Amino acid sequence: MARHRSVFFVSDSTAITAETLGQSLLTQFEHIPFDPVTLPFIDSLDKAAEVVRQIDAATKGKGVRPLVFSTLINPRIREVLKESTGVFFDFIGTFLPLVESELKTQSSHTVGRYHGMVSDTQYSVRIDAVNYALGHDDGISTKNFEEADVILVGVSRTGKTPTCIYLGLQFGIYAANYPVTEEDFTQKDKRIYSLISPYMEKIFGLTINPERLHKIRSERRPGSRYASLGQCRLEIAMCESFFISEDIPFLNITSMSIEEIAATIMHAHKLPRRVV
Amino acid sequence: MARHRSVFFVSDSTAITAETLGQSLLTQFEHIPFDPVTLPFIDSLDKAAEVVRQIDAATKGKGVRPLVFSTLINPRIREVLKESTGVFFDFIGTFLPLVESELKTQSSHTVGRYHGMVSDTQYSVRIDAVNYALGHDDGISTKNFEEADVILVGVSRTGKTPTCIYLGLQFGIYAANYPVTEEDFTQKDKRIYSLISPYMEKIFGLTINPERLHKIRSERRPGSRYASLGQCRLEIAMCESFFISEDIPFLNITSMSIEEIAATIMHAHKLPRRVV
Repeated sequence: MARHRSVFFVSDSTAITAETLGQSLLTQFEHIPFDPVTLPFIDSLDKAAEVVRQIDAATKGKGVRPLVFSTLINPRIREVLKESTGVFFDFIGTFLPLVESELKTQSSHTVGRYHGMVSDTQYSVRIDAVNYALGHDDGISTKNFEEADVILVGVSRTGKTPTCIYLGLQFGIYAANYPVTEEDFTQKDKRIYSLISPYMEKIFGLTINPERLHKIRSERRPGSRYASLGQCRLEIAMCESFFISEDIPFLNITSMSIEEIAATIMHAHKLPRRVV
Repeated sequence: MARHRSVFFVSDSTAITAETLGQSLLTQFEHIPFDPVTLPFIDSLDKAAEVVRQIDAATKGKGVRPLVFSTLINPRIREVLKESTGVFFDFIGTFLPLVESELKTQSSHTVGRYHGMVSDTQYSVRIDAVNYALGHDDGISTKNFEEADVILVGVSRTGKTPTCIYLGLQFGIYAANYPVTEEDFTQKDKRIYSLISPYMEKIFGLTINPERLHKIRSERRPGSRYASLGQCRLEIAMCESFFISEDIPFLNITSMSIEEIAATIMHAHKLPRRVV
């Protein structure tokens, strides 16, 4: 068995960037068990000294050097951390001088700029976009589809709600969604056509493999008609035919993460990033 | 005026890590106007060649070399990108060999591992946690506070809902919230004490400066008593006294981002990360 490795994500701010960068490297080593510790807000020499003690204790305890992923901005705090027994991966120290040299200017070395409070406006944009997603969840209010940047359409349990929320939080995108049901196609008036047709250029379809949908729905309502494989197959077939006949771009999300679905939609509809 | 710089975030997957890396560096140069372009899913030599054309066109158009932040995993695709006229910041090429050498093993060089679909379980954990946040928003259902990892308490418009959703999406944390109103303190039974007291160790308080709250509430309900500075002052004073008398840890979120609030709560309550 592989030896457990301690990993520290250290930052003067939230440590989100340190975690993101560190994890993107660690996920390339799936056979090694890592024990991660996140240490945000390390913004003084005293706190840095305490982190060094913690890293050194991990080295002693496990008999192997921890990996330390740092996005520390303050050069003095970074110097303290470099004295630990851990292996120091210095994202800012590695790249910031290269960017400075290309831009021919000194950076501001301001802590907490990214993932920090950029402005009241950016904060409001995100909150408004999340509230929009919540208020336009599951077709509650189709009358405000005009305001939407994108409208996700798909049968129940295809990831529409979390994707809409993610688009709001991450990018400030106004994402509404419309849950397709069997009735949309069997009712005489075929209401889905009239509801959606004015907004065709905003529509993005989500679909999923019937077996996976059956599994997801069965966790919520075991044994129900709603969760049955037959019903899942029927709804998906109707919905996919609809996407194809109406020329709606769509995505099979069966083995996709929320981030992948969102990135695909942003890219396909060329949506603007309203928050950085 | 500073010259605009094109910036490209290029990835074989979602480009979230490339954006995170690049933006964390670019936010250190607040006086330079950047024109960012995100190019996810660059997973073939043909797509890479197209990106090179796009970068070279930007160089020609602006008369200055674009910055290119890459998290490309595939070494052959990276080699193609390096031939562009942009300044290439190679995150994986810089750090992955260092991690491999320390771990004394080759990495899997698998595209899309991070921010990709890790497992059905991790997907479900996030979705369940988001649904939990939505189902326990604004005190709708205090009876399920037992299941909560953390319960955010604060007056209306202190960022409770977006923070709960963020904690669910990002970390798989079950976060409920309880909106404090004037009645919680003026009613005879002081219901907040009985509702919250069984869960004291899970409670985290959010507060805000009255002037900022007045501004936020005025955008929603201009001229209302709810939005008046007097009412904002009253509610905040009552709520903060409550936090202090009950020894509840609390945070003033006036100039904090959702990420900072979430990171502070995770750290303060030592909450486990359920998703990577």
